[in-house]
Amino acid sequence: MHILDLLIGRPLASSEERAEQIGIAKGIPIFGLDALSSAAYGPEAALTLLIPLGLAGLNYVVPIIFCIIVLLIIVFFSYRQTIEAYPGGGGSYTVARENLGTFPGLLAASALLIDYVLTAAVGISAGIGALTSAVPSLHPRTLSLCLLALLLLTLVNLRGVRETGGIFMIPTYLFLGCMLITIGIGVFKAIASGGHPAPVVAPPVPRAALEAVSIWLLLKAFSSGCTAMTGVEAVSNGVRAFRDTKAAQQTLALIIAFLVIMLGGIAFLAKEYKVTATDPNGSDYQSLLSMLLTAVTGRGTFYYIAITSILLVLIFSANTAFADFPRVCRFLAEDRFMPVSLANRGRRLVYNEGIVALSLLTAALLLVFKGVTDRLIPLYAVGAFLAFTLSQAGMVAHWKRQRGGTRSMFVNGLGAVATGITVLVVVVAKFTEGAWITVVAIPAILLFMHRVHRHYERVAVEIGSNTPLETDDLKHPLVVIPLQQWSKIATSALRTALTLSDQIKVLHVAEEGHTQEVCTRFQEYVERPTENAHLPKPELVMLQSPYRFVVGPIVDYVVRLAEENPDRRVITIVPELIENKWYNYFLHSQRATLLKTNLLMKGNDRISVLNIPCYLKGQ
Amino acid sequence: MHILDLLIGRPLASSEERAEQIGIAKGIPIFGLDALSSAAYGPEAALTLLIPLGLAGLNYVVPIIFCIIVLLIIVFFSYRQTIEAYPGGGGSYTVARENLGTFPGLLAASALLIDYVLTAAVGISAGIGALTSAVPSLHPRTLSLCLLALLLLTLVNLRGVRETGGIFMIPTYLFLGCMLITIGIGVFKAIASGGHPAPVVAPPVPRAALEAVSIWLLLKAFSSGCTAMTGVEAVSNGVRAFRDTKAAQQTLALIIAFLVIMLGGIAFLAKEYKVTATDPNGSDYQSLLSMLLTAVTGRGTFYYIAITSILLVLIFSANTAFADFPRVCRFLAEDRFMPVSLANRGRRLVYNEGIVALSLLTAALLLVFKGVTDRLIPLYAVGAFLAFTLSQAGMVAHWKRQRGGTRSMFVNGLGAVATGITVLVVVVAKFTEGAWITVVAIPAILLFMHRVHRHYERVAVEIGSNTPLETDDLKHPLVVIPLQQWSKIATSALRTALTLSDQIKVLHVAEEGHTQEVCTRFQEYVERPTENAHLPKPELVMLQSPYRFVVGPIVDYVVRLAEENPDRRVITIVPELIENKWYNYFLHSQRATLLKTNLLMKGNDRISVLNIPCYLKGQ
Repeated sequence: MHILDLLIGRPLASSEERAEQIGIAKGIPIFGLDALSSAAYGPEAALTLLIPLGLAGLNYVVPIIFCIIVLLIIVFFSYRQTIEAYPGGGGSYTVARENLGTFPGLLAASALLIDYVLTAAVGISAGIGALTSAVPSLHPRTLSLCLLALLLLTLVNLRGVRETGGIFMIPTYLFLGCMLITIGIGVFKAIASGGHPAPVVAPPVPRAALEAVSIWLLLKAFSSGCTAMTGVEAVSNGVRAFRDTKAAQQTLALIIAFLVIMLGGIAFLAKEYKVTATDPNGSDYQSLLSMLLTAVTGRGTFYYIAITSILLVLIFSANTAFADFPRVCRFLAEDRFMPVSLANRGRRLVYNEGIVALSLLTAALLLVFKGVTDRLIPLYAVGAFLAFTLSQAGMVAHWKRQRGGTRSMFVNGLGAVATGITVLVVVVAKFTEGAWITVVAIPAILLFMHRVHRHYERVAVEIGSNTPLETDDLKHPLVVIPLQQWSKIATSALRTALTLSDQIKVLHVAEEGHTQEVCTRFQEYVERPTENAHLPKPELVMLQSPYRFVVGPIVDYVVRLAEENPDRRVITIVPELIENKWYNYFLHSQRATLLKTNLLMKGNDRISVLNIPCYLKGQ
Repeated sequence: MHILDLLIGRPLASSEERAEQIGIAKGIPIFGLDALSSAAYGPEAALTLLIPLGLAGLNYVVPIIFCIIVLLIIVFFSYRQTIEAYPGGGGSYTVARENLGTFPGLLAASALLIDYVLTAAVGISAGIGALTSAVPSLHPRTLSLCLLALLLLTLVNLRGVRETGGIFMIPTYLFLGCMLITIGIGVFKAIASGGHPAPVVAPPVPRAALEAVSIWLLLKAFSSGCTAMTGVEAVSNGVRAFRDTKAAQQTLALIIAFLVIMLGGIAFLAKEYKVTATDPNGSDYQSLLSMLLTAVTGRGTFYYIAITSILLVLIFSANTAFADFPRVCRFLAEDRFMPVSLANRGRRLVYNEGIVALSLLTAALLLVFKGVTDRLIPLYAVGAFLAFTLSQAGMVAHWKRQRGGTRSMFVNGLGAVATGITVLVVVVAKFTEGAWITVVAIPAILLFMHRVHRHYERVAVEIGSNTPLETDDLKHPLVVIPLQQWSKIATSALRTALTLSDQIKVLHVAEEGHTQEVCTRFQEYVERPTENAHLPKPELVMLQSPYRFVVGPIVDYVVRLAEENPDRRVITIVPELIENKWYNYFLHSQRATLLKTNLLMKGNDRISVLNIPCYLKGQ
């Protein structure tokens, strides 16, 4: 059994593709995990910025989250229309490219690529951060644990999408269940108590107010809260993986509905139970969800189950990126804006190279930021919202071109304007904290894609052909054989040469004192037999090499021969000993390899190499 | 100008060899530095072991050094005869191999190889150790400085032997001058004062006696002192580098004479000036030569010049190893006991690979022992004395075979017995302190050489041929061309194929939905033109690949084709895009390389690859 079979499963044939397609129940974990898990850090990120307002900050929680929910619903309707219009999938990149042009499409694509890498990095680091908070003794190993989690995710995804859905179903639904139960109980208690519920365990006393409220502060809180929306576009990129378009739409609707309920519920409970955020750098830090759970249900078994599900969901949320990053890469590769190999599907019908690329980029990000979530979050929302905006603007153009559907055009237009404003707000509010990195990275990626595309176009022009084979001027090649000593290998090379051409040059790099011997032997061993058999007689060429180099004079001779015969191809026969043990290679001069490399480097289109292997047996 | 020209000089032609050969004045630094610099640590190593005897220890210094000098003189006469009898050089290995047989020869060679690596490591680390003692702030950088010195030595030696001699002449003769002046003044003062010279600066008060003298202690002191003799065989290995045999003999005589004077002088002065060794691990440590210099001449300018010359000579003493290790490797490689490439001379007429191998082994030793001399010294003398013994025993056999020269036989026999006893003494006395490593390493090297030799013998038998070329049964090869899409590259491959064979198989790995199109195009672009030109018609072969692999099905087809046609050679044409920028390679699928590698791995002697390059222009 091959080691790869064990790690990532047996190869799947193209005909098995159908069976890989998924329905709603599996669609939610695969394409919704990122969006749903955002509920675990989005509201908290907003509340953290309101800490300086003290208890008064709670007055602004509901309005801020309300704004985010409104945005979310606008975006939902917008993407719902997109899925319908583009059942082939492709999301923001396809929509923007087809409707707005190549540049906006690539802009959306680069925004998405950045967003996915950050999704993977933030998901993993937040999950491991939660784990190390629960088990402080693991804290010094944060980075190693992050990289280990990344490795596991990579392997799981290389196995393919069906198994991925299966693995992630349990924690996703456990998380959803826990959250909905907690919100249900909390809301019931709050209403039953007439708006003054008694917490089971009282939350920490809020800090005293240090600042008065300001528009700037509220904008920053809103920007941080927007990280709760990342990942919403995943379904529209992956429509092809679904059973049908309807399943994709229903999945999106359910994901958004759950997210709205969770965000609304968290905001409501925080206000009613008077739970403010704690300083993430302080020693008394506790996560918002942990405080809400404690206040509503106490620290019982349910609390620990819920916390465990949050940990798992955070780590697995990175999986959304693994499902979508390779797909975006594939679309780009098919349009020749990324290396073509990203469009090759591997043995398990997934885009292996895209998965590996995401894995490497995420690893780099984790290494640079040492696995700390806090520093990654400000980079996060820009990419997602830029892609939202371009996608919806593209849909507006789509409806305009199709002449009709004023309502549809309005829905997407509203989405484009709302998310466009959000991009500006996020960039301005978060610029110094990290958004600038995204602002720098996007042009870099655009430049890269431009270069790649130009290269492919150039190569296509250069090697392209639309004319039938020309058959005139076909001439036998000149054959060159380097020969240092007589052996079975030399015999084999000569015999091959005699079947290929009637002009054979045997090159010998002269060593002092052996010239005559070589000539005599050549006469006896080569010239006489060929003459007797009335075959073309190979010609012995003695090369001088004052510097004792062997490869250089041969290459020079071959290049000169090709120059002197502009209508002929020159084939250099390079016999090569093939060892059956790798370490034995060190025992032989690497002249065959050197000769091949040098001929490639200094040669031209008419100089080719015929590599004749000679397999050693025994031992 | 090529970077290598700058670093190691322009290539030298074989005809320039004569000019590289050296006389006595350059021979002493090149082949004697190791032996001469041993005076800086040999006597001190012996005295250090006498510390527990206190002032009484000085009574044994002169006898011990006397024994070493006697040994040295015996060895001198022995090697003098060897140089005469073996003007081709080769030293212990050649002598032992020719006269005693292969095994003793290889035993001597492995002993020498170990000895040279240790010479390089000890020389460098002792020199850097002295430097960091003088400039204590450099102490934390000991290892880096050692490796830097090693790198410089390597580069200097890659330039070739003439320049090497030039660079090392000044410090060597400065060192000799300083030592001879100091000894001269000291001896004069001692005699003039009637045996009680007054030191300019009094040496540290000797420790009180802690032990009574014992044979065991004296044997250990003698063993340590023997490190003063290492390097004496260098001249006999390198006779070829000399102008003539006489020059080599005279060089050896001068080296031994200087060494005898220095050893004798140091022993005499230590006794007369009552200078005992200080604890090398203690904080009041001072080197023996430093104390003698201070006692005889005081701490003036002369003192600092002398100390500097000692530092330089110690570092450069490693150079003897660089001159000789590659030569021993070359002899072994020529006899096929080492990889043949060690016998290739490089652009500067030196054995590049041997120099690099020594450099790597020395670096490994320095890294393992962290650049500390103390721990390396006990490993040191075993190899040298084992080689001495075998060489001289070989000379005895030589004279015996030649029937005559009883005197010569006696000289070499005495040498063999004396050094043989010394080997036993050193191994026993130093076994636990490190000599065991040498005892383990020698069989390991012997095993390696045995394996290498067996491999070459096997290959020689397998590929050897002494029969003229057979010319019957020559048949055109079958040609296979993988073709995924029509392009100029495909055209070029097909045109080449048409000149090579009348049986051409064009392989296409089928993708769903394109089969018909490919067939139609093939008819139009290939079959029709060849038919019109009355050329053999290439055959299109459609390969199924349910797992989307391209390379695998092609390799399988080629292997099967070769099996079905046991009397034909199968040539697979692999066209390859050659980029003019290395990074552009990532933009192309590496199928050409994969295909070549896979064909080599799974193929046989009749499956060869014709690599047709297609050079991209532009950009």
